[in-house]
Amino acid sequence: MRILGIDPGLQTTGFGVVDFEGHALQYVASGTITTTHLARGDLPARLKVLYDGIGELRTRYQPDAAAIEIVFVNVNPQSTLLLGQARGACVTALVACNLSVAEYTPMQMKQAIAGTGRAAKAEVQQMVKRLLQLPGLPGKDAADALGLAITHAHAAVATARLQAAGNLVRRNTGAYKTGRVL
Amino acid sequence: MRILGIDPGLQTTGFGVVDFEGHALQYVASGTITTTHLARGDLPARLKVLYDGIGELRTRYQPDAAAIEIVFVNVNPQSTLLLGQARGACVTALVACNLSVAEYTPMQMKQAIAGTGRAAKAEVQQMVKRLLQLPGLPGKDAADALGLAITHAHAAVATARLQAAGNLVRRNTGAYKTGRVL
Repeated sequence: MRILGIDPGLQTTGFGVVDFEGHALQYVASGTITTTHLARGDLPARLKVLYDGIGELRTRYQPDAAAIEIVFVNVNPQSTLLLGQARGACVTALVACNLSVAEYTPMQMKQAIAGTGRAAKAEVQQMVKRLLQLPGLPGKDAADALGLAITHAHAAVATARLQAAGNLVRRNTGAYKTGRVL
Repeated sequence: MRILGIDPGLQTTGFGVVDFEGHALQYVASGTITTTHLARGDLPARLKVLYDGIGELRTRYQPDAAAIEIVFVNVNPQSTLLLGQARGACVTALVACNLSVAEYTPMQMKQAIAGTGRAAKAEVQQMVKRLLQLPGLPGKDAADALGLAITHAHAAVATARLQAAGNLVRRNTGAYKTGRVL
């Protein structure tokens, strides 16, 4: 299974592609899609860059599934609105490619990668480097995106295990919760 | 020129299609794209409905340009985030269709349609009915979308006039401001 992780942002969207077979993770690619070369106020043009960029990733790497970060309300409501639109563009680009889209909070990703939901950005970078045996540290946005792809791989293992046990309840968030079906 | 107006919303997105030639407006179609049949928490699926819906409008009506409402920060930050994502999906769907996307605030639309930026929803509905010689009142979301298409038609006239006068300054918002170029 090849997973595309996306860390959405209006200025910089991180991406990471990871292959996952059995329990083995293999790094494929990572990087960022940036819109900083465009006029700040031209939102349609900036969202088109995100849409086209994700389309290009789809064509180049042919992922089987996607995982995207759940974003939270910012102190600045205007920033919340802009981040929301950027994330909307990313999710739309993924579903337009007919990819299934799983959603994880930053806390779920940090828990999966570093063992604690409170891990710092630098810890995530270090752990992603170690888990994927990278020669150097990935950038912060790329590390988050790779972390999301790895989180989804872990969730897929857990899901398969639970499905085998026949007691799966899928949560709306794309995360998984066990529960006995009565 | 055929204009597609979009009033974005996560539950209900209004659309309106208007033909515009010379100074004459002609109603083509209007309605809503709704996502209320889907699970509230399945955001990717809901955004896909918006994306597919706008793609279908593009195929069916072949508009030359699009106009979309600029949304504002809500009292509830979580609603702001959801509305932002819905609007991001709509803008993305429009640019994915290679449509140029103009953006107008509700105030600009009300000013263009009803002569005052403080017009009530019902006034907008009445004025849209009158301007397009509709047999009945359009729904609120459809009326807003038709209002945006008409606003864009008016802006196109104003722009053509200004371009002829050679003193155009295009604002980021997609609205137009006159200014003498020094």
